[in-house]
Amino acid sequence: MIEPRMATMLSFLLTDAAVEKDALQECLAGAADKSFNRITVDGDRSTNDTVLFLANGAYGGLPLSAAHPDWPQFVGAVEMLTHDLALKIVRDGEGATKVVTIRVRGARTDAEADAAARAVGNSLLVKTSWAGTEPNWGRVMDALGYSTARVEQDRVDISYDGLPAARNGCAADTPIDDLRGVLTRRDFCLDIDLHMGNGTANVYACDCTEEYIRINM
Amino acid sequence: MIEPRMATMLSFLLTDAAVEKDALQECLAGAADKSFNRITVDGDRSTNDTVLFLANGAYGGLPLSAAHPDWPQFVGAVEMLTHDLALKIVRDGEGATKVVTIRVRGARTDAEADAAARAVGNSLLVKTSWAGTEPNWGRVMDALGYSTARVEQDRVDISYDGLPAARNGCAADTPIDDLRGVLTRRDFCLDIDLHMGNGTANVYACDCTEEYIRINM
Repeated sequence: MIEPRMATMLSFLLTDAAVEKDALQECLAGAADKSFNRITVDGDRSTNDTVLFLANGAYGGLPLSAAHPDWPQFVGAVEMLTHDLALKIVRDGEGATKVVTIRVRGARTDAEADAAARAVGNSLLVKTSWAGTEPNWGRVMDALGYSTARVEQDRVDISYDGLPAARNGCAADTPIDDLRGVLTRRDFCLDIDLHMGNGTANVYACDCTEEYIRINM
Repeated sequence: MIEPRMATMLSFLLTDAAVEKDALQECLAGAADKSFNRITVDGDRSTNDTVLFLANGAYGGLPLSAAHPDWPQFVGAVEMLTHDLALKIVRDGEGATKVVTIRVRGARTDAEADAAARAVGNSLLVKTSWAGTEPNWGRVMDALGYSTARVEQDRVDISYDGLPAARNGCAADTPIDDLRGVLTRRDFCLDIDLHMGNGTANVYACDCTEEYIRINM
């Protein structure tokens, strides 16, 4: 470790199932991509994040692999587990009080959807607006605009837990207090539709509070 | 404006000099590139940053252009002015108490030096370490590592106002309290040498304090 005070993530998964080595690796890589690699607390990637998956085969039986009829069930269980662990990391984020699932759809590609979601999830202005229970969709729009995703302002829809905040790039008529009500929740979704294509991505983020600064000073 | 509470920059420069239109535009673009476009408070690019330069020609004489003997002096004066204005924006940054000049050299290209400097200048962990007067070079190294610049850890030198914090990617023997002394200053330089080539870039950044969060909540 370069700097022990730096945030790190060490994740160890264990199963008694017998799983073929390559299949286990592929399963883990896919599950990590949908979970650990989709969270952000402060945008500072750590130097030594690690996920290890150990299968000892104690359960016996034919080793699991893509050819095994139980494989989809096994993969599904692993994905559920890693998703749960990943969200716990966000909830435990330094000073975090809210977990926000950012769901971008309608981007030109999945990669652009990912870029858009990460820009929003790493924007200090967006994260402080969540801390302040302010559904400031202008800040969301701003982050989308400077992301590398192709965005046309007058096509963008933004909503919080299903309540429209912006439609076609303009304020929706949802009463502001209704939107604020969503932002008081411990968990909520920010849905963004760019209406540019079929690309989608989820990112799991949190608010940024004064406590974050105190902890990291 | 999409959201009036969002940070914006409107800069108006006026001169009585007579300056040819294209020359003035080129001079301003070059000066803005070295000043306004090199500052970061929180990494959130604004939606309506503007720099206007008006030359009324009241001073008379042959209009200035690249062909005029006084041109280099004029350009130098404009660059000094825009640099000064840009640093004032950083010093006035929401909750900022320190202005940090990040000077990266030894990158493979200027573009990589720029990417490295911006990664450091936008890292919340680096910015909170400045707020806490902690010369945490590990966080600087971490930001360099996740930047798009090519970095080899054991070549990196990091110093604060000339005092080595890291040499070849390892802690230098400067006493920690001497480094902390630098970080108590209102202005200091963070010098980073990647030893990978000849690319250079400067970025002007500030610390991130609890006040930033309070203002933006």
